[in-house]
This record gives sequence, structure tokens and C-alpha cells, in this order.
Amino acid sequence: MATLSDIGVSAAINCLSAILFLVAFAILRLQPINDRVYFPKWYIKGIRDSPTSSGAFVKKFVNLDVNMYLKFLNWMPAALRMPEPELIEHAGLDSAVYIRIYLLGLEWNDEIAVNFSLKIFFPITLLSFAVLVPVNYTGGNFEAMKTNTTDLTYSDIDKLSISNVAPGSSRLYAHIGMAYVFTFWTCYTLYREYMIVAKMRLHFIAAERRRPDQFTVLVRNVPPDADESVSEHVDHFFCVNHPDHYLLHQVVYNAITLADMVLEKKTLQNWLTYYTNKHERHPNKRPTTKTGFWGLWGRNVDAIDFYREQIETLSKKEEAERERVLNDPNAIMPAAFVSFRSRWGAAVCAQTDQSHNPTKWLTQWAPEPRDVYWDNLAIPYVELKLRRLLMAVALFGLTFCFMVPIAFVQTLANIEGIQKVLPFLKPLIQMGSVKSLIQGYLPGIILKIFLILLPTIIMTMSKIEGFTAHSALETRSAEKYHLFLLVNVFLGSIITGTALQQLKQFMNQSPTEIPKTVGVSIPMKATFFITYVMVDGWSGVAAEILRLVPLIVFHLKNAFLVKTDEDREEAMDAGSLTWSVSEPRIQLYFLLGLVYSTVTPILLPFIVVFFAFAYLVFRHQIINVYCQKYESGATFWPDVHRKIIIGLLISQFLFLGLLNTKKATNATFFLIPLPILTFWFFKVCKGRFESQF
Amino acid sequence: MATLSDIGVSAAINCLSAILFLVAFAILRLQPINDRVYFPKWYIKGIRDSPTSSGAFVKKFVNLDVNMYLKFLNWMPAALRMPEPELIEHAGLDSAVYIRIYLLGLEWNDEIAVNFSLKIFFPITLLSFAVLVPVNYTGGNFEAMKTNTTDLTYSDIDKLSISNVAPGSSRLYAHIGMAYVFTFWTCYTLYREYMIVAKMRLHFIAAERRRPDQFTVLVRNVPPDADESVSEHVDHFFCVNHPDHYLLHQVVYNAITLADMVLEKKTLQNWLTYYTNKHERHPNKRPTTKTGFWGLWGRNVDAIDFYREQIETLSKKEEAERERVLNDPNAIMPAAFVSFRSRWGAAVCAQTDQSHNPTKWLTQWAPEPRDVYWDNLAIPYVELKLRRLLMAVALFGLTFCFMVPIAFVQTLANIEGIQKVLPFLKPLIQMGSVKSLIQGYLPGIILKIFLILLPTIIMTMSKIEGFTAHSALETRSAEKYHLFLLVNVFLGSIITGTALQQLKQFMNQSPTEIPKTVGVSIPMKATFFITYVMVDGWSGVAAEILRLVPLIVFHLKNAFLVKTDEDREEAMDAGSLTWSVSEPRIQLYFLLGLVYSTVTPILLPFIVVFFAFAYLVFRHQIINVYCQKYESGATFWPDVHRKIIIGLLISQFLFLGLLNTKKATNATFFLIPLPILTFWFFKVCKGRFESQF
Repeated sequence: MATLSDIGVSAAINCLSAILFLVAFAILRLQPINDRVYFPKWYIKGIRDSPTSSGAFVKKFVNLDVNMYLKFLNWMPAALRMPEPELIEHAGLDSAVYIRIYLLGLEWNDEIAVNFSLKIFFPITLLSFAVLVPVNYTGGNFEAMKTNTTDLTYSDIDKLSISNVAPGSSRLYAHIGMAYVFTFWTCYTLYREYMIVAKMRLHFIAAERRRPDQFTVLVRNVPPDADESVSEHVDHFFCVNHPDHYLLHQVVYNAITLADMVLEKKTLQNWLTYYTNKHERHPNKRPTTKTGFWGLWGRNVDAIDFYREQIETLSKKEEAERERVLNDPNAIMPAAFVSFRSRWGAAVCAQTDQSHNPTKWLTQWAPEPRDVYWDNLAIPYVELKLRRLLMAVALFGLTFCFMVPIAFVQTLANIEGIQKVLPFLKPLIQMGSVKSLIQGYLPGIILKIFLILLPTIIMTMSKIEGFTAHSALETRSAEKYHLFLLVNVFLGSIITGTALQQLKQFMNQSPTEIPKTVGVSIPMKATFFITYVMVDGWSGVAAEILRLVPLIVFHLKNAFLVKTDEDREEAMDAGSLTWSVSEPRIQLYFLLGLVYSTVTPILLPFIVVFFAFAYLVFRHQIINVYCQKYESGATFWPDVHRKIIIGLLISQFLFLGLLNTKKATNATFFLIPLPILTFWFFKVCKGRFESQF
Repeated sequence: MATLSDIGVSAAINCLSAILFLVAFAILRLQPINDRVYFPKWYIKGIRDSPTSSGAFVKKFVNLDVNMYLKFLNWMPAALRMPEPELIEHAGLDSAVYIRIYLLGLEWNDEIAVNFSLKIFFPITLLSFAVLVPVNYTGGNFEAMKTNTTDLTYSDIDKLSISNVAPGSSRLYAHIGMAYVFTFWTCYTLYREYMIVAKMRLHFIAAERRRPDQFTVLVRNVPPDADESVSEHVDHFFCVNHPDHYLLHQVVYNAITLADMVLEKKTLQNWLTYYTNKHERHPNKRPTTKTGFWGLWGRNVDAIDFYREQIETLSKKEEAERERVLNDPNAIMPAAFVSFRSRWGAAVCAQTDQSHNPTKWLTQWAPEPRDVYWDNLAIPYVELKLRRLLMAVALFGLTFCFMVPIAFVQTLANIEGIQKVLPFLKPLIQMGSVKSLIQGYLPGIILKIFLILLPTIIMTMSKIEGFTAHSALETRSAEKYHLFLLVNVFLGSIITGTALQQLKQFMNQSPTEIPKTVGVSIPMKATFFITYVMVDGWSGVAAEILRLVPLIVFHLKNAFLVKTDEDREEAMDAGSLTWSVSEPRIQLYFLLGLVYSTVTPILLPFIVVFFAFAYLVFRHQIINVYCQKYESGATFWPDVHRKIIIGLLISQFLFLGLLNTKKATNATFFLIPLPILTFWFFKVCKGRFESQF
């Protein structure tokens, strides 16, 4: 096991790499040429414009002001300076609440928001260092064992963990007491945070300016009618059932070909703009183009005339297609957006059953226009249920058997396989060093590729499940990813072996044995998770702020693809908070912190540093970079709350298992009310707050 | 193990006792003196009146018409003759749907309702006798084993069960196929029945005549207001939020003393009537009474004057108390019944959130007046949640540790203990035969007393949980009782030992081991459950129709307590379907039928006979005896549906465990989709129908 100095070295390396990333970021962000990569949000908001081209030509690309380099860390206070209400207005409630997860529970008060004590973990860290570390350190279990067995090796970190307390020792009551204190503190913080977020949400909703979707209800599964079109049917239904409030409706058309045409026209328009600009700059020379693919071959023609003509033809086609869609009854989907005269009318319609058959005339609040996922608006009830069933089975397979397909691909993709498919590589592969490189890294690379693809796979699964809004898709995917991380990263690291082997093991063990098996391994894995927090947490967050991939992509696009100003706008990929991926990761850190708070408190400072640093970085990103695709008004909060409680419960059960192996049966008895009370707290919070989200 | 002839003897005894009960019933019901015991419903409905006193004096008490004795079984066709729509009108939807559980799935058609093929079990019985019994009988496992071990004893019943199929035999595929067929058949029937009941419910609700509670919403947790009384606060709140539909409201008063006074007045009034009647029969003699307790001692006074005076005094007190309650702000509970101008307005109010704090202004459909459980209308939110937590813990204790307090009482209540408390019994107890009787029967009697008290205990627990309607209390109690029967009767009979020991065993076994342990014992317990079905089912149902306890109680009351006609009305205890007890019992039979359908099909005919017989008896009782206390419109159906599905899932898991021990791993693999599909079916049904209830 690693010693304290090993951890120190690892920490130094990771700090160094994090600092390197930060320095690189500090330098790169000052270059005007990168301005659109590091401040896209301001461009998109129209507040910032391309750097003025007055002055030296070099200055347009490189910043020569030495003063600014000296203050290269000044983005940090800048990121903290914007008060929360302004942040909500600037970036939306989703983002503002998202970064609150890192803080979890600062006062609803701007002054205190500046000092970033993380409400849950900062006091827990202090307390466990004050109480548990001395208790563990003087436990003397290892020394006692050393007198019996000579070849026992243990490190300072082990001496700080619960492993150093002898089985059956009364010192364990300190740990139990702390488990209660930590749980109550976490619950108290969660309750207050839930209350604050609910208040913020209601305030946000009340302060919004009027939008059509606040008056609109999405109606799905409109039953077919022999005598009427969908539109007439919807109209009659709501005229009869909501006579006082119904205003109008808009049926949903299946207009995929039309959408393609619109996209094509936009490309053509872009080319036209490009050639017109070119012509304006050199008025004496008409630009030409070729008629073939990408203008690479074919007949030479006058470019402006050619594109103008193309656009005209397409416009006519588009018009015809539009007519067709509007008149073709098959193009009308059995779904509609129904608008009401008042928000009250819409609320009543969204919240009540419209038909005695609850699979027809399904109503829900219309997602805001950006948030609608159009593909899923017209799935019949039984098909929807069938999809859910299939995806539940698939999720089980993905989580517990995900190593199976990877192992299969890995066995196929060996040296011989590559030689067969790509024989011309044979001489290269036969070289000793290359061969060993491939054999050593190929399995790892395949695994890595799969892990990179994983969020996409999970999102596809959620799409198949048939949710109608992007926000719902993201929360659903986050749940799936959370399960995956829990089983394959957390449990998979503690109990080595694939998830399938774990599953087999768990199925053949008694329910009381499982927490014991896992619990016993927990203290031993502390150093691994400390390294994990540093690599994935510290360096990962620092890499996030550098935005290396968007930086490269932007410059590549700028060099080769950008033709007009609009293109430049589009090349600027602002990105957004990828909720479905980043939230489960935070949850993993919460879980680690809660599990290790009573077992190996030395892990806690690393978690605290992660949360503080991530808070800083993401606050900066939210202010300057990310552009959210939709605004859900923090509807995700109940999920965050639930998952933290799940983490709390897991930590309690594992601690129970660990104590059981410590021959502390009395102690175990004291701990049993803890999960019951935690679960009860969850139910109380659900009843108290959930309907506000 | 019992042989077929043993079972035959047991069946003969039980049939005989059932027939004895029936004959006794047939004779007793014809006596005019018992008329009010066996036909109370008609009296309460005012359709039937006391037998005319014309004719011989004897005829008033004993029926001398020999012809009627000859047709002593004619109540059976009479019970079946009333068509279902008429039955609904006569006894309400709750009762009509209740007896449908016995039939589960007859056509919505009166002609077929007469032949009582029980939709689920009749075809299953036929099929398993056609397929599984031959397969099992020719399995030859016991004969093969007999050649190896000489002292193996087995009976004919064992030869008919799955035990007679050799491990790993391909005959097991027949059982797996049948498991699928039975599951699909059960699900299909359940789906159709759900649809029919939903239709009946909607039809019933639509056909009801207008009642005030259809326009009324129960509002609880009205927040206190410093400036306004509860009544004003409710008025203003609904005037503002439901201006178009709000009509009026009625706050709830805490008028316990007033209620006591009303009750006392009623008793006095009754005495007055009694003495007035007495005086009328003997006009020349004023009746007298004594002023003391129950008129047994004290001063002699004129009875009519005395009671008239008493009533007058009480009326004045009552008036004063009424004034006090109306004006005392502390007597007003934070709950109110709010009435609307339209059912639409009430529906909207009942189904939507009224406040952004979902623990205030809680709205729900008002239960019908008879159904309201007044004591629970004003429980604050956190207290309610706390009560639920405590009762969940108590339920766990009741189910799994219920033997602990009984064993404790049993050890206390031994001979020596009784001698100490009641020393005058000493000579009696010291007698040898009495002593052995006490020692032998006392533990059993204590257990029996506890089991008789159990429904009351469970109902008290439900009341503490804070439900506001009797119907909700009953469904909730039924759930608790169902759990109790499942653990302590079903599992407790299969795995001998107390529930606590079982729990310990289960906690220390792996999740895959549990179905195996239970599954293996199932075939061995078939004869026990056959006897159970006959004793508890057949004889129990026959005893139900005899109404021995109400018969005795009625005659005792009639002899000693009845003074006026009103008293006689009240002495006539019509009773009602005790949903909280009888529904879980039916579920136990469903569970037995489903579990044994693939294992020991010989049990099925006994179940079929039980269902058919119980249907007949309860149909008769519903028509002639029971008076339901409230009408919920079959809201209980989703619970019935859910519990049958739970039974189905249990049967599948146990069958899986049983097959596992039969070394049929391939076969097990085929069975895994079955519970998944069953659970999916449950989800589909829930989404499709539940919101109609």
C-alpha cells in the first residue's frame, strides 16, 4: 500500500499538471485570436465583437501587453465576482443551480457566497480530523498485529484509517457517533438547500417574461377519428372540455424532407454570400465555380448566378413540399400544442386527466421550444411501454455485462486479426517494438473508445425510451450513467473483477454478507481513490478550463471552412454543461466523500479541494463560455437530492458491514436506525418539495 | 406424508361439517324469529317488516310449513338469480365487485354469470390435469429412488407432484411451458377484468344521483393566519383562487363533548319512549324508576316525568355547548369541506396543487359523509410523516416478531402465575385433569386470542397512520394483513419456524438460495395446504352463512336489552364485508393456487371448489345480510390486481428455485423472462387503468 510520501508525489504531479493547464489557459485566453474560444458566450449574446483590427497586424493575433500576463490568475476573482442573481439572469437558473451543487448549501446571501466553504464536506473534514484521526492514529491495531506476525507492512495512511482500531474496541463508538453527526449534518444541509433551490425556482419562474410555452400544453396520443382530421378533433375536444380557457392549437407535422430542404438552402445561401463578398472586394472579376460535388469538378459557371439560380429552384421545391405537408393527412402526427388564454387554464389542463382512458389525450406542460425533442412526440402507449421494458433490460446488460462485448472485440482485434484485414501493415507490425506496443495498448484503447462512446450510447437509449424533452433525456441519461459509475467504477474498484463476476458473487451471497465483503475492502482502496480524485478531479477540471479540443477545432475550422461571418459564429462551439455526464461524476465524489468520512478521513481534503476548484472553474465557464441549449428552471434538483441520499445510504450500509467485521455487534445495533431515519428524511423531503419541481 | 385416502377422509369430514352448517342454516333461516338475523338488509332497506302476528302464536317463532323444509337448498339458485346491474343497485358497486373477485373474469353478461367457471383457475385446473398430472405420474422418480434406498415411503399424492420427475429430466419442459401458459392466462384474465371493473366503475359513477360530496373537496392543513379565523381564511383563499367555481365551505369543529351529549340524549329518549309505550299499554299505572345508575337504586320517581325533565336539562346544556363550539376559535380544526358550483370545478381543485408549499392547503376529493374518519382530519404534515415511520417499524415488528410477545405472555400465563393472581381458583387448578388441560391448551388459546385481536391491532395501526376515510383505512389494513398472512401463514407453514427465525435465515442466505430453500419444501406441504383450504376455506365459508355469533347476540339482546322498536333495529347487526380481513384471505388462496398450479396440481380442485362455494355464499350474504358502511365505487380494485400479480411473481420465483434444485439450469434460463414480463404487464396495467380509480 502507498505511503504518505507516495501520495505526496502523486499529489505534486497532479498539482503540477493542473497548474500547467492553468498557466496555458491564462496565456491562451489573452490572445485575441483565441477570444472566440474562451469567451464565446459574450459573442453569442452580442455583447462582445471581434477584436478591432486597428493597430498592428500582429496585435490582432497575439497579445503583447506584458502587464496582462503578470495578472494571469485574475480570472479567478473575476469568476467569483458576479453575484448570484446576476448570474441567473446571465446564464439561466439551470447553470446557476448546477454550480451550487459544488458548494451545496451556501447562504442565500452574496457576501458569504465568496468564501467557498463547502457546506457538507468542509465541516465534516474538520470534525473527522479533530476526532477520528487521533482516535485511529492511537488505535494501535497494526502495532499489536506486528508483534504477532513479522511480515506485516503498513503505511502511515493505514494508521490514520479505521483499520488501525482493534476489533471490538470501544473506540468504534467514536466512529458511530460521527456517522450520526455526519448524516444529520448532510441531511440538514440537503434540506436547507432543497428549500433554497425551490425558492430560487419559484422566484425565477415568477420573474420570467411571458413566453408562449407558459400558456401551452403538449397533447399527445390524440385518438384517431374517422370523421375529422387531427386538427379538427383537437379543436372540438378542447372547445368542449375547456370552453373558457382554450385559445388555439398547433398540430405537429412530420416534415423531415422539408427540414432537409431548409438546411440545404441555408448552405447555398452561405455560398452565395461568400461569392458576393468576394465579388465586392474585387468588383472587376466575377467569381466562378464548378457544378460538381463541392465545386471540385464539372462545368465552370458564374458562381453568383449559379447559386442564385439554385436557391430559386430550391425555394420553389420547398414551397411545393410545404403545401404537400400541410394537406397530407399522413404527415400530421397525433400530437398538438394547445394554447390557453390564461396560465391557470393551461395549468389545469396540464395537471388533470382529459379522458377516462389515461393512454389517450395525454397532457403535459409544453417544454420550451428549444427543449422539445421532436422525434418522440408520436409514440403509441404500448410501444412506449415496450421500449421502456427493452431499455431496462438493455441498461441491466450495459451495466453488468459491459465487459463482455469489450472482451470480445479485444480478442478479435489482436495482431493476427489486424494483419489479415490490413496486410500492407504487416512489415510495420512485425517490428518488435511496434508489436509489443500494440499488444500492450490495444485492449486499453478499445476500452477507452468504449468509455468515450458510453455517454452517446446511454443518450441513445434514453431517446429510444421516448422522452419528449431534451431536459428529460438528460436527467434520464444521468440516472443511467450514475448507475454505471456506481457499479463499474465504485464497486468495480473496491471489489476487483468485472461487474458480471460481482453480480454472480452477490447473487450467491447473503444480503448481510455483501456490505461486509465490500466494507472490508474500503479502507484498503483509500489510496487508489485519492489518486483517482486527483487525476480525474483536479487535472480533469483544469483540462476543462483549457478547452483544448474546442480550441483546436475552432482554429482548424477557421483555417479551412469559414467563409462568411455566419460561418465564424457557427465554428465557435460554445458547448454547454453536459448534465448527463457531469452530474453523475459529481455524485461519485459525493459518494466517495460520504463513504470515507468515517473510514479514512485523509481522503476528505482531496474531495474538498476538488469541489472548491471545480466550483471556481465551472463558475468561470458558465459566465464566459457555456451556452445552455434550454432552460428547465432547475427541475433536476430532486434527482440530485435523491442521488446524494442514495450515496448516504450506501455509505451507511457499507459502514455497517465494516463494523460487523470488526466484531462490534453492539455497535451495529446502534447503527440500524440510521438508514431508516435517512430514508424517512428522503420521504419527508419528497413530500415537502418535489411537487414544486 | 398423507396418502390420497387420508385426504379423502379429511375432505369427507370437512364436507360433512360444511353440510351440517348448511342444513342448520337452511332450518334456522326459515324460522320467523330469526328473520332479522338472516335478512337484516331487507329490514334496513324498509322492504321487509316483522312477520305479521296474525295466526297462531307459535307461528310467530317457528315455521311449521313442511314444504319449505323440503326446498331447504333453494337459497342457492335464489342467490344467483339476481342479475349484476340489479345487484349493484341493491348492494352497491363495492359489494358487487367484491364477489367478482371470487369469479375473477366472468363475462359482462348475465346468462354466463350463472355458470360459475372461475376464469383463472378453472381452465388452469383442466390444463394441469390434462398435461402435468400424466407427466408427473409417469415420471418414475420415486420408483427409481426406491431401487436405491429401501426405506423410502411415498404416497399417491407425491406421485402426482413434480417431485416424481427425475432431476434434469426433459419432462420439466412441460412444467415450464405450463408456467408460461398459466401466467399468460392469468394476465389476460386480469387485464380483461381490470377493464370490465373500470367500465363498471365509470358507469356507476355516471349513473349515481347527485350527491353533495361529488361537488365537494376536503381541504386539510389550512395554514394559521394571524388576522383571520380559519373560516374566513378558507373563504378568501378559494374566492381568490377559484372565483368561477367556489360556492361555499364548511369548517370542521372539534365537538367531542357535544357528540357525547347527543348520544346521551338519544339513550334518554329511548327510555322515555319505552316508558311512554308501557304507560299506553297500561294507562291506569304510571311507570316509576329509580334515579341511580341504570335505574337500580336511588329515589323512586315517575319515570316519564323524570326522563322528560332529564332530556330538557340536557337539551339546554347541548345548546350551550353548541354555542361554545361555534364561537370558540380553538374548537375549529384547520380542515374544511369546500363545495363548488360544478363537478368540474371540484375536480380541478381536488387534482391540482393549491399552494407552492405542498404541505399546506392539501386538497382531495371529499369522501362520502359515511366514509369520513373524523379523528384524522387535522394532523400536521411532519407528525403525519412521523406516524407513518413509526407504523412502518411497528408493522415490521408485528410481522416478523409477532411470536415474541406471545411467547412472553405464554411464559407468564402458566399455572403458577394464575394461582398467584387468582388464588381462589387454586383447588380447581390443582385437580390433575384441569391442570393438564390448562397446560395443554393455554398457549394455544393465547395465540388464538392474539389472532382474533390481530385485525383490530392492524386497524388501529392504520388509524394511527392518519388516513381520512374508512375506505382508505380498510385498504391499508388489508395490505398489512396480506403481508402478515404471506409471512406467517404461507412462508411460516412452508419453512417451519417463527418468522424471526426465517428472517435470520434469509438474511444469512444469498438471494438465489432463498427461492431454492422455499421451493424445495413446497411439494412436501401440498397435503397441509389441502387440509388448510378445506378447514379454513370450505368450513369457514359455511360457518359464515350460518352467522352463529350474530344469531346468539341478537337473541340475547332481544331477550334482555331491547325495549323499543328502535332498539330492535339496532340489535339487528347486519355486519358488512370486512374488507381488511377477507380480501387478504382470498389473496392467500390465489397465491396457493398459483404456486401449486405447476407443482402439485391436485391442490387446484380444492381451490376451485372454495372459490365457487364462497361466491355462492357471499352473493347470498350481500343480497340478504350485509349492509356496507360506505360506498367507494370499487376503488380497491388496483390493490386486488397488484396483490394477485405479487402472488404470480412469488409463484414464479419459487418455481425457479424449485427447478434450480432439479438440476435444470437450461430450464431455469427459459424461465427468467417470465417474472420480467409479468412485472412489465403490471406496469402497463397501472398506466392504463389506475388513474380511473
